[in-house]
Amino acid sequence: MAADARRRGAYSQMARTASGVISFAGGMPDSTLFPTDAFRRVLNRVIREEGRELLQYYPSSGYPPLRQYLSGYLLRFGLEARPEDILIVNGTQQGFDLVARTLLDPGDFVAIEQPSYPRAMQVFRAFGAQLLPVPMSGGGLSVDHLERLLGRQVPKLLYCQPSAHNPTGLHMPAAARRRLLDVASRHRLPIVEDGFDGTLFYGERPPVPLKAADSSGQVIYLGTFSKILFPGLRLGWIVASPELIERLEMAKQLADIHTSPLIQAAVYHFCRQRLLDRHQARALREYARRRNSLLATLGRRMPEGVTWTETQGGFSLLVELPEGMDAATLLPRAIERGVAFTPGAAFYSDSGGERSLRLSFSAVPFGQIEEGVRRLADTIRERRRHPDVGTRERGSAVPLV
Amino acid sequence: MAADARRRGAYSQMARTASGVISFAGGMPDSTLFPTDAFRRVLNRVIREEGRELLQYYPSSGYPPLRQYLSGYLLRFGLEARPEDILIVNGTQQGFDLVARTLLDPGDFVAIEQPSYPRAMQVFRAFGAQLLPVPMSGGGLSVDHLERLLGRQVPKLLYCQPSAHNPTGLHMPAAARRRLLDVASRHRLPIVEDGFDGTLFYGERPPVPLKAADSSGQVIYLGTFSKILFPGLRLGWIVASPELIERLEMAKQLADIHTSPLIQAAVYHFCRQRLLDRHQARALREYARRRNSLLATLGRRMPEGVTWTETQGGFSLLVELPEGMDAATLLPRAIERGVAFTPGAAFYSDSGGERSLRLSFSAVPFGQIEEGVRRLADTIRERRRHPDVGTRERGSAVPLV
Repeated sequence: MAADARRRGAYSQMARTASGVISFAGGMPDSTLFPTDAFRRVLNRVIREEGRELLQYYPSSGYPPLRQYLSGYLLRFGLEARPEDILIVNGTQQGFDLVARTLLDPGDFVAIEQPSYPRAMQVFRAFGAQLLPVPMSGGGLSVDHLERLLGRQVPKLLYCQPSAHNPTGLHMPAAARRRLLDVASRHRLPIVEDGFDGTLFYGERPPVPLKAADSSGQVIYLGTFSKILFPGLRLGWIVASPELIERLEMAKQLADIHTSPLIQAAVYHFCRQRLLDRHQARALREYARRRNSLLATLGRRMPEGVTWTETQGGFSLLVELPEGMDAATLLPRAIERGVAFTPGAAFYSDSGGERSLRLSFSAVPFGQIEEGVRRLADTIRERRRHPDVGTRERGSAVPLV
Repeated sequence: MAADARRRGAYSQMARTASGVISFAGGMPDSTLFPTDAFRRVLNRVIREEGRELLQYYPSSGYPPLRQYLSGYLLRFGLEARPEDILIVNGTQQGFDLVARTLLDPGDFVAIEQPSYPRAMQVFRAFGAQLLPVPMSGGGLSVDHLERLLGRQVPKLLYCQPSAHNPTGLHMPAAARRRLLDVASRHRLPIVEDGFDGTLFYGERPPVPLKAADSSGQVIYLGTFSKILFPGLRLGWIVASPELIERLEMAKQLADIHTSPLIQAAVYHFCRQRLLDRHQARALREYARRRNSLLATLGRRMPEGVTWTETQGGFSLLVELPEGMDAATLLPRAIERGVAFTPGAAFYSDSGGERSLRLSFSAVPFGQIEEGVRRLADTIRERRRHPDVGTRERGSAVPLV
C-alpha cells in the first residue's frame, strides 16, 4: 500500500500544490472543474434505462449512438467521418497501441516530431520500431526536413500532433499541413494524427485536422475525451478508412474485447444533452485565463536568455533555458523553492532537450501561477550565479501525460 | 449502422431466443439476473463521494481498496496474494494480452489444453507463438502427455483452465494439479492459470487454484468479474510475483494507462457491501438449475452414440457426436429446427474437434432447455438418417466467449 500511496500522491502532486509546491508538472485537466455531478445524473439514468444491455458483452466497434454522435461532433472541426470509420478505444493510448500492433513490425522506422509525446514514443519502441526525429519549425514539424528524410529512409508511419502540440502548445500552420499531406501522399506514408481537440485553443482557431483534408486516406486520426472531459473514463476513438478500422477492431478484440459500453453510453448521453459543450466552454475560459496569466508572468519575471513557446492550445508550453543550463539539474533546486515542472528531455527521442522544460498550466489554480513563475525565475537566477550547485535529476523520467 | 445492428443482434441471439431459436451458443452470464439497480446505487454514491479523483488519471496498478479486497476474496479459494501481487486489468482478455506481450517472442511455443478457450489461443498466436496442444484426460490436461512434450520441446509457457474449464465445464483433479505443478517447477515452465471463479461450481467444490499451491512462483493467475458479475465492466486482475507484476504494469501503462478507476471503485464498494456475494448465491442457484436440467434432458433425449461432459462448473459443456458426424454441418440444420450451439472446432488449436459442439446453458431460460435439447436431438437423428444433407458451416468461426 505504501507504493500505491506514493503513486497516488505523485498524481495529486502533479495537479495541485502538495506540501507547498506549485506544480506545473502534470499535463492533465483540472479535476476541480469536472462536471462530476452532471455526469453522475446521466450515468444514473443510463443504467436505469439501458443497464442490462450495457453490462453484458458488447461489440468491439463501440456503442453505435456514440459513434454516430462523434461523426457529427467531428464535423465541427471539418472532419467528415461516418460512424463506420470510427472505432471506440480506451483513450488515445490504446489508439497508439492498436495502430502500432496493426501496422508496425520490429525494425520498422517511425518518423516523429521532435519534441513529442513520450508515451507515443514508448509504444512505438515497444513494438520494435526505431524513431526518426523530425525537428519542428514554425509551429509544426519541418516538412522540408521530413522530405529530406524520406529521400534516405522509408518510415512505416509518421506520428504528429498538428494542433495543441504537447509540450509546446503550438499549431502547425495550414500551409505546412497541406504540404505535409502532399508529401505523405506522394510517399504513401501513413500519418498518425494525435488530435487533442480542436476546441481547446486560446488564440486563433487551429486549422482543420490533417484528416479533414485527407483525400488519399493516409491519415489515422486519434481523438480522446481525456482532455475535454474526464481522463479517468479511458475513452477515445480512432478515425481511419473502413479497411483499417476493421483491422484495428480485430486488434481491439484481442486486446480487451471492447471498451465499457456503460461508460460509452454515459458519455454519449452527456454529449447529447449538450453538457459537454457547456463544460468545455467553462473549462476553456478558465484554461485561457491561466494560460494568459502564465504567458504574461513569464514575460515579466523571466531572466534574459530564457524563451518559451507562445502556447495556442492544450495544457502546456515549453521553456528553453539559457545556454549551458540543464533542466533536470534545475528540478531539485526548483522543488526546494516550491515549484515543479517536467524536464524536457523526456519529450525528445534522442539526447536533445536538456535545456528545455514543460510548464503545464491547466491544473494550476489561477492564483498560484504568478508565484510559481516567480519561484522558477528565482531558481534560474540562482543557478546562473552558482552553476555548479545541485545534482542532475530527471525526476520521473517519463511524464504520465 | 446496419453492420452494428447485425453485430448487436448477434450478441442478443447468443444469449436469448431470437426469432424462435433457442441458443446454447453464448458463453455469457444471463443479463436478466444482473443486479443492475444495486450497482446503480453504488455507482451513484461512489461518484458523489470520490468522483473527482476517480475521473482523473490514475495509477496503472489499480484502485488500492479493490486490490486489497481481492487479496481477501482470493483467500476464500485458498489463494494467498498481497495487494502488490495483484494488477487490475480490463478483464481476462487484457490479462492474456499483457502476459503475451511481456513473456512471448515470435516463434515461441505455448503449450495449451486441448480443447481450450479460442480467444486465448488467438492472442498467443497474434504475438507470434506456436501452440502445442496437450489433450485432456480425467477432467484436466494430461500431465503425462505434457511431460513427454517437455522432453521434446521447450514451451515458453503453459495456458490452462483447471477449474470450470471452457468448453467442457470440468475440473482438473487435485492429484493431477499437484503433479502439474511439480512438472512445471522442474522444467521452470510458467503456467498461465485462467481462473474463472472458484464459486461457480455445481457438484463438489473444485480443488484450490494452482496458484494457491505455487511454491516456486511459476503460476500467473488471471481472474475476472465478467462471469460472476458484469462482462460489460471489463474488469479483471492478474496475480503474479511482484517482479512480474511490475513488468505487466509497465505493459499496462503502454496499453491504455489504466483501467477506469470509477468502475474499479464501484465494484469495490459493491463487493464490500456483500452485494456480490448475494448476487453470486442467487445466480449460482439459477445456473445450477439450468445445468441440472440440461444434463437430465440430454440423458433422456439424446440418441445413442452421443456423449457429453458432466459439467461441474462454469457455463457450458461439450457434446461429442457419433462417429462420422460433423458439428459445423449440423449447425444450419439445427438452426432451421430452432436451436443453436457453438461447433467445437473453434476450441481446438489444430484440426480436431469436428465431432464436438459446445452447449452453454447459462443464458438459456430454464423453461426452454428441454425444448432446445429435443430440437437438437431431432436434428442429430435426422442427420443420421440423411447423412448427405446440408452444407458445412462453421457459424461464427470463433465464439466471442
